[in-house]
Amino acid sequence: MLDQKFSIFEFYESKVRSYCRDFPVKIHRAKGSVIHSVENYSYIDFFSGAGALNYGHNCEPLKKKLMAYLDDDGVTHSLDFYTEAKEDFIKTFQEKILIPRNMRYKVQFTGPTGTNAVEAALKLARKVTKRTNVIAFSNAFHGMSLGSLAATSNPKKRQGAGVSLGGVTFMPYERYLGEHYDSLDFIDQMLKPGGGIEAPAAFLIETIQGEGGLRCVSANWLQRLQALAREHGALLIIDDIQSGCGRSGRFFSFEEMDVAPDIICLSKSLSGYGLPFSMNLINPDFDIWEPGEHNGTFRGNNLAFVTAKAAVEEFWSEPVFEQALHQKIGYLHVRLEALAERTRLLVPEAHFLGRGFMCGISVGSEDIASKISQAAFSAGLIVETCGVHGQVVKLLPALTIELDILAQGLDILETAFDQVLGFYSYCEEKTA
Amino acid sequence: MLDQKFSIFEFYESKVRSYCRDFPVKIHRAKGSVIHSVENYSYIDFFSGAGALNYGHNCEPLKKKLMAYLDDDGVTHSLDFYTEAKEDFIKTFQEKILIPRNMRYKVQFTGPTGTNAVEAALKLARKVTKRTNVIAFSNAFHGMSLGSLAATSNPKKRQGAGVSLGGVTFMPYERYLGEHYDSLDFIDQMLKPGGGIEAPAAFLIETIQGEGGLRCVSANWLQRLQALAREHGALLIIDDIQSGCGRSGRFFSFEEMDVAPDIICLSKSLSGYGLPFSMNLINPDFDIWEPGEHNGTFRGNNLAFVTAKAAVEEFWSEPVFEQALHQKIGYLHVRLEALAERTRLLVPEAHFLGRGFMCGISVGSEDIASKISQAAFSAGLIVETCGVHGQVVKLLPALTIELDILAQGLDILETAFDQVLGFYSYCEEKTA
Amino acid sequence: MLDQKFSIFEFYESKVRSYCRDFPVKIHRAKGSVIHSVENYSYIDFFSGAGALNYGHNCEPLKKKLMAYLDDDGVTHSLDFYTEAKEDFIKTFQEKILIPRNMRYKVQFTGPTGTNAVEAALKLARKVTKRTNVIAFSNAFHGMSLGSLAATSNPKKRQGAGVSLGGVTFMPYERYLGEHYDSLDFIDQMLKPGGGIEAPAAFLIETIQGEGGLRCVSANWLQRLQALAREHGALLIIDDIQSGCGRSGRFFSFEEMDVAPDIICLSKSLSGYGLPFSMNLINPDFDIWEPGEHNGTFRGNNLAFVTAKAAVEEFWSEPVFEQALHQKIGYLHVRLEALAERTRLLVPEAHFLGRGFMCGISVGSEDIASKISQAAFSAGLIVETCGVHGQVVKLLPALTIELDILAQGLDILETAFDQVLGFYSYCEEKTA
Amino acid sequence: MLDQKFSIFEFYESKVRSYCRDFPVKIHRAKGSVIHSVENYSYIDFFSGAGALNYGHNCEPLKKKLMAYLDDDGVTHSLDFYTEAKEDFIKTFQEKILIPRNMRYKVQFTGPTGTNAVEAALKLARKVTKRTNVIAFSNAFHGMSLGSLAATSNPKKRQGAGVSLGGVTFMPYERYLGEHYDSLDFIDQMLKPGGGIEAPAAFLIETIQGEGGLRCVSANWLQRLQALAREHGALLIIDDIQSGCGRSGRFFSFEEMDVAPDIICLSKSLSGYGLPFSMNLINPDFDIWEPGEHNGTFRGNNLAFVTAKAAVEEFWSEPVFEQALHQKIGYLHVRLEALAERTRLLVPEAHFLGRGFMCGISVGSEDIASKISQAAFSAGLIVETCGVHGQVVKLLPALTIELDILAQGLDILETAFDQVLGFYSYCEEKTA
Repeated sequence: MLDQKFSIFEFYESKVRSYCRDFPVKIHRAKGSVIHSVENYSYIDFFSGAGALNYGHNCEPLKKKLMAYLDDDGVTHSLDFYTEAKEDFIKTFQEKILIPRNMRYKVQFTGPTGTNAVEAALKLARKVTKRTNVIAFSNAFHGMSLGSLAATSNPKKRQGAGVSLGGVTFMPYERYLGEHYDSLDFIDQMLKPGGGIEAPAAFLIETIQGEGGLRCVSANWLQRLQALAREHGALLIIDDIQSGCGRSGRFFSFEEMDVAPDIICLSKSLSGYGLPFSMNLINPDFDIWEPGEHNGTFRGNNLAFVTAKAAVEEFWSEPVFEQALHQKIGYLHVRLEALAERTRLLVPEAHFLGRGFMCGISVGSEDIASKISQAAFSAGLIVETCGVHGQVVKLLPALTIELDILAQGLDILETAFDQVLGFYSYCEEKTA
Repeated sequence: MLDQKFSIFEFYESKVRSYCRDFPVKIHRAKGSVIHSVENYSYIDFFSGAGALNYGHNCEPLKKKLMAYLDDDGVTHSLDFYTEAKEDFIKTFQEKILIPRNMRYKVQFTGPTGTNAVEAALKLARKVTKRTNVIAFSNAFHGMSLGSLAATSNPKKRQGAGVSLGGVTFMPYERYLGEHYDSLDFIDQMLKPGGGIEAPAAFLIETIQGEGGLRCVSANWLQRLQALAREHGALLIIDDIQSGCGRSGRFFSFEEMDVAPDIICLSKSLSGYGLPFSMNLINPDFDIWEPGEHNGTFRGNNLAFVTAKAAVEEFWSEPVFEQALHQKIGYLHVRLEALAERTRLLVPEAHFLGRGFMCGISVGSEDIASKISQAAFSAGLIVETCGVHGQVVKLLPALTIELDILAQGLDILETAFDQVLGFYSYCEEKTA
Repeated sequence: MLDQKFSIFEFYESKVRSYCRDFPVKIHRAKGSVIHSVENYSYIDFFSGAGALNYGHNCEPLKKKLMAYLDDDGVTHSLDFYTEAKEDFIKTFQEKILIPRNMRYKVQFTGPTGTNAVEAALKLARKVTKRTNVIAFSNAFHGMSLGSLAATSNPKKRQGAGVSLGGVTFMPYERYLGEHYDSLDFIDQMLKPGGGIEAPAAFLIETIQGEGGLRCVSANWLQRLQALAREHGALLIIDDIQSGCGRSGRFFSFEEMDVAPDIICLSKSLSGYGLPFSMNLINPDFDIWEPGEHNGTFRGNNLAFVTAKAAVEEFWSEPVFEQALHQKIGYLHVRLEALAERTRLLVPEAHFLGRGFMCGISVGSEDIASKISQAAFSAGLIVETCGVHGQVVKLLPALTIELDILAQGLDILETAFDQVLGFYSYCEEKTA
Repeated sequence: MLDQKFSIFEFYESKVRSYCRDFPVKIHRAKGSVIHSVENYSYIDFFSGAGALNYGHNCEPLKKKLMAYLDDDGVTHSLDFYTEAKEDFIKTFQEKILIPRNMRYKVQFTGPTGTNAVEAALKLARKVTKRTNVIAFSNAFHGMSLGSLAATSNPKKRQGAGVSLGGVTFMPYERYLGEHYDSLDFIDQMLKPGGGIEAPAAFLIETIQGEGGLRCVSANWLQRLQALAREHGALLIIDDIQSGCGRSGRFFSFEEMDVAPDIICLSKSLSGYGLPFSMNLINPDFDIWEPGEHNGTFRGNNLAFVTAKAAVEEFWSEPVFEQALHQKIGYLHVRLEALAERTRLLVPEAHFLGRGFMCGISVGSEDIASKISQAAFSAGLIVETCGVHGQVVKLLPALTIELDILAQGLDILETAFDQVLGFYSYCEEKTA
């Protein structure tokens, strides 16, 4: 069943490839929220590189800075040498992002992947506390190298490790035990002596679970989690890799939650241009690293410093970007809530999920969600599914998406819902 | 002791930073084998981004392709979607690199770091063999995330894990036990029932040890290792991350050794431009990955596809590049051998080490090596040290270095040796 | 502070010794429920060798059989050779214990300690299911060798391992989360995909927690746990080491609970004479051991076979022993309930705990419990404390105790309560 | 293929039973070095309960003390309470065994199995050094619970664990690498920084390998191992469980080797009567246990205290027993050397192995060894095989064996060798 068009990949690329199986298109160019295939089909992008393209593809102001830097032979690769590009980025990030939010953190440039940032955060938490156990949460996803995979809940992904993954205890995320039981009471109880859980080095949590199905924590729950961490002498690490950099409507996903995590992991959209780049923000009191104790060849990506600085300046220096974003979020939520409402006529458990520009609809089954995604793709929209059962249609539009393209994408999505659900409804009638 | 010049870093960047401590300079621009500081000092670069810049900084033909791609809004970030850039790279790599060498491999684009490539290779070997134990070697370095760190021998780096690192057994590298004992006999004996070593999933080896002090395997030893792996039903994985992409004088470090590794890990200079990029070459018989079983946000770096293709075309399509390289290698080795010879007058154990453009001189102690590196730096040359005791002065010049710059760098190095050794000799006389 | 009397121990025996610190007496002889010291003090024994002496010290009918066997030079030590003594025991145990209860099990004689029985049970469960994870429970105690220690919740005992203890996930025991939340709902939820808990090989549980503070499971909860185990393809292992052999009022602690565990661990009172002896009962469908796959020098203790057979014949062949036991249990519970009631006047949270002849009173704090135990000891009664905070006064009288000695022991205990609580009450008045 | 005679076992006892498969006899009585079956066949015992019966079965002087103690209702089971029997044993052991040998040790009574003694020793070494890695040796056997199994080399037994066994690194035993390479040089080299082996908490070694095929260490090698341990800040633990208590010809197997192990594990013949009993001797400087940090129900076996004391008094108070033993050893070795010599006519690699009364002949293959053991059994001699390939006929006669019975057993053994080798020789002629 080789498709001639993709034969190079099918013949030469490992079977591990996955997204290309759901979206069989060969991409050529991309700009803003639109992707163009080699055959010149175009697709509205509600996926944004799994959250790595919050400012859209090839964002113009960033591109200009990037090309100027390249043109000038600015240093590209430099490990952790001091560079002008790095200095400029750190200054801008402190001045425009951290200081205005009263956040006092040092930065660590880890290997340029999210999983590496998480690995570094866990190493540091274990070093600080001299403990090994880390508390992660149901439906968590933190990466695929052994250290972060140990904190990822998905059974298939874990099995891929081929070794036993230790040092992590899973606890229920907010509302994982249902509405009637406060999962934090449970955690509190299990951490008492006799509960059998070893004293934790850290609590590692996503405020919005990306892979895990768009569940969110509330401010109150997160504050109580932080209090629990403090009580047990454990660090609070927030993995803001997908939910950060504006995805939630604020730069940090927990900005209005009145918490002060000890480590914050950033990656994905941090460079603003889809360049591999990661950074941990560390409470200076816990910066007890020895020089080189965690390292990696690509830990200083100067091209990313340039675009990341440009992104901060372009979007986060003035309130106007956030204001516009909130309006778009409002519009998106209204339409998704309505769509969820309509879906409930056929799928009673359907409901809206998520926060900000990281939201979607649970449609009850992987089969329906996947059919909707496929129908949307056929009509020119890229939108993925998530959740432990793949039951959630998940939207990650660029924060910079034009309102009309957002509307157009949502129109396609609605039609896809109608098609798929109409088909289901037809089948049900037939068998009734 | 804050240096005003670097205060931003000292105040805001984590203590984990390391190279910048040995080479306190703020880099601005770089071209070919020369780096320029903000204050417009220039440095000859014998370090090449720890081997990530085999074609020098901002290599012009690659830069042109990269800027054209950016200018055209070619897709930058696309996970493992099919893209034209990826297809072009795969085709070129197969046609120009693998097929002419009779190498039949599929490619897997792992997360864009060397450590991630190693993690993926180990996962796959464990999946294929349904075993967990991996044999790694004395002085090995394979990365800093928990899976690859478990195969890294350095005690300090291991301790940084904060958890026990299992699933790996260390065995002596060729000549690690000295000239009079064949370490492979030992490995063979220890793998017999009763030796206590669990049946291995894989042997993971660097043909030239980068961090470990420039030890090399011989063709015969590597062939016997491969035979031993086959005998035990284990895979042979070659970590060619630092030693590959021409560093040894051939594209692959093991090219003339008549072996057929089951997995080959490439990264560092693969993109040719210092962009984060990694790839595993997998014997197609062992490509039993499930879709998405190993993944990562930055696993498809289109900018790197573009420059990596350009690098292959520019340097590896015709024999001329390799021929010129071999001449330069000849020149470099002659001068280093002579320098080692001279050094032996004062440091009897001093000797030349390494292969190709990955070579150096063991000068007996960390103190001497480090002083030489510092003296060279003061005179405008960047050259690092390596080895378990830091006793090796290690040269990684760009493969594209102009002969006169190479000569100039070596002149500086010789002077640095003389200064430092003269000083030592003076001290010895004084105390005699 | 050497006590001359104990100087040999203080000088030559490791500091690891513990009970002797709370009960500093040098024992000489013991019979039934009375212990005699070297100085000829006597103590009523409510401790019974931590449950290893259910039939009292040197139980006469067992002693006769044991001495006759020794006198006749019956084989003492024979590993897992066939012996007449072993055959006789197996036959008797099947005929008098298992068959009348409709229990179909094979027997495995593990190393003669409880911890070894648990190790063997876990090995077998992992072998049967090809999984590694075992679910153990809050406040569990299963032994001190690394396999069973991993399933023991006590933090200090775990820390003694000196290595990380993996392969076990702790879950809340019945009512561990309080009265308002069903811990089994929680377990069920956490075992769903996404909960992050790996599929379990087994659930390992004590029906009455000995070390853990005399918590008990209800029949209904245990049945549901068994159903959950079946649903997940996991084995149910009951550790009846302390709670078995009549301690609960029936031979097995779960006899009237309508469950069919896949493996049952027995030890402690199994020999009936305090001899080291352990046995696992295994559902024959799961007896997939290879010969010698688990072994140990003392796995066939013929002296124990002789006394264990005698114990079964003497006490479990006719219903009369159980009937008398139930009367004693009734008496004991009435008196303890009354004592708990009275204690509540001063310690509001005091309450009766446990089942059968494995019961006690939670007195709110380690300090009170320990003072009561000491006061009782001074008055000639040996009674220990347990619970994660040491807050429970725990009674384990011999099942064969004479009613008047039981009464006498309880009198001493009441007096000890009064003394200690009177003292507390006095202190409170003083400070009020 | 049920044998009616053994049907109870075949029907009701787990398949894990092993020795009874090789020696299908139902034992009834045993005295000294002779075992009697139910059908009144008798067997000379060259197996001695795998070394647990160094003084033969039901040794009369010990039996008398045991029966007197039982008759007097001496306390049987008492955990780690102080008892008169324990005090008497400690005093006697110090006075008669340790003090005359200038050995300064405290005693710890672990759970009454060898594996438990090893578990306790490893815990303590890890606690003392705050390290986890333990060096064990090729062909080592230390027990079957997870902690000691991790230090056991046999692959099948390890696989039985069902979990990964970490925290132990295997190194080559003396001469394991052949005559031409000193395995200690290798160990030394691998422990250097860069070797990848984590700093060890302890070296754990058997001076004569029981399961592993009767290899022995020399005094010089063991001294150097001790020096290496001291150099690396690691403890030296000698597992003298099988080789101790006189088996080597001296009470301790290393007595004349001029070493001072930090911990010595004793079990098997320590009670002298085949009773479950274990003890660790601990350098007092390292006795840093917390009370109860390692415990176990049967850790104080008073019956064993009584017989162990009697054994020390009977056999080790005067030199006469040792002198007689050395004569018997001389006789045994002469005959075995001759038998090995004769065997070499047919099996060139045949050779004598072992030390003292723990010796045997390697006959080249499991098939021959097993046939010899079976032929001997048919003729009334119980003798087992060992070694990683089961290629060694292993003799463990009682130290108290009468010379005529020893001679008679050796006659049977010679005949068995002749039968089996004659048969092989006949087969070879036929096929020639």
